[in-house]
Amino acid sequence: MQIGKVTGTVTATAKAERLTGQKLLIVDVVNADGKVLIASTVAPDTVGAGVGDTVLLTHGSAARMAQGLSSAPVDLAIIAVVDRIST
Amino acid sequence: MQIGKVTGTVTATAKAERLTGQKLLIVDVVNADGKVLIASTVAPDTVGAGVGDTVLLTHGSAARMAQGLSSAPVDLAIIAVVDRIST
Amino acid sequence: MQIGKVTGTVTATAKAERLTGQKLLIVDVVNADGKVLIASTVAPDTVGAGVGDTVLLTHGSAARMAQGLSSAPVDLAIIAVVDRIST
Amino acid sequence: MQIGKVTGTVTATAKAERLTGQKLLIVDVVNADGKVLIASTVAPDTVGAGVGDTVLLTHGSAARMAQGLSSAPVDLAIIAVVDRIST
Amino acid sequence: MQIGKVTGTVTATAKAERLTGQKLLIVDVVNADGKVLIASTVAPDTVGAGVGDTVLLTHGSAARMAQGLSSAPVDLAIIAVVDRIST
Repeated sequence: MQIGKVTGTVTATAKAERLTGQKLLIVDVVNADGKVLIASTVAPDTVGAGVGDTVLLTHGSAARMAQGLSSAPVDLAIIAVVDRIST
Repeated sequence: MQIGKVTGTVTATAKAERLTGQKLLIVDVVNADGKVLIASTVAPDTVGAGVGDTVLLTHGSAARMAQGLSSAPVDLAIIAVVDRIST
Repeated sequence: MQIGKVTGTVTATAKAERLTGQKLLIVDVVNADGKVLIASTVAPDTVGAGVGDTVLLTHGSAARMAQGLSSAPVDLAIIAVVDRIST
Repeated sequence: MQIGKVTGTVTATAKAERLTGQKLLIVDVVNADGKVLIASTVAPDTVGAGVGDTVLLTHGSAARMAQGLSSAPVDLAIIAVVDRIST
Repeated sequence: MQIGKVTGTVTATAKAERLTGQKLLIVDVVNADGKVLIASTVAPDTVGAGVGDTVLLTHGSAARMAQGLSSAPVDLAIIAVVDRIST
């Protein structure tokens, strides 16, 4: 997984049917110091995350193991809100 | 997922049989500000996108969860036309 | 998918049994202008491509959806010869 | 797989149910000389690794082949503690 | 697939049970001219490769299609020893 920082939201009317009802967030992939590694990925939220939160992102087929996403065409999901990073 | 900007089309006569009938678009992967992160990916459209549109791209096995692609040899698909990005 | 330019061939005697009979081509991943993004990937051809051709490459498990590759240990395949890119 | 150096830990209260009980470690992907290639990935430990250890990381669906992770939404796992690298 | 150059070996005592008996090699991913693209990946050998050999690497779920790896937690495998690259 990678650490992410939620920076915004995406809205789309024309979309895959199985995205309906998913909250899609813009998330920068960051390192432990908050430096952006990959800007502006888009992930459905499965744990109540919001803009400003530090989160855990899972990529690829793992995203469809997250709550409510088993048949969604998604390659990324927010699976935790990070409380603390200790390095 | 990542944000994409549709910039063109690809045509191919000699191709995998299961690509027949798919509209293949050239899409630059971009960040929320429109800066190109990965140039010239190629994705089938599943939501009525066209050149100039901002779209959502899904990678890997997730592409085959999109409408009409379950048995196609594709690793990328357009799954939404983006209306608004709020950051 | 990504656009590729076929630049050569690979031969191997000691290899996985299920690679036997596959023509393995060296392909540079390029953008729509022909600039190399990833040099020297190796992909089996499934559509009659040859050195000098512009092709479409599919990555990951999608490669095994291509003709004749369902049980081969391959993570990349040539699935089309590109006739024209319009941007 | 890639070589990793464990640098810290992550704690999260709001998280996917199937992450409960997993020890999540911060791991830098490094080369054989210890140079950081990808900073701050997050991986569950399956072999008793701790901060300061050099480990092997497996990515993607392979992570769910590791002990205890078959239904977890994870795309990375620590699958060995490295004793020695000989180059 | 990508071309690799075997540069060393890894030994690990604490490891996933299904890695037992696998020879784990350090492999640099290189281009057709031998330039290093990704340093120090770690792959099980399935074709009798050794240090100094030029090999073919397969990534992701394809690695588990290689001989003897179907249930191993591996995301990379050596599937051929390259005899000749013609470009």
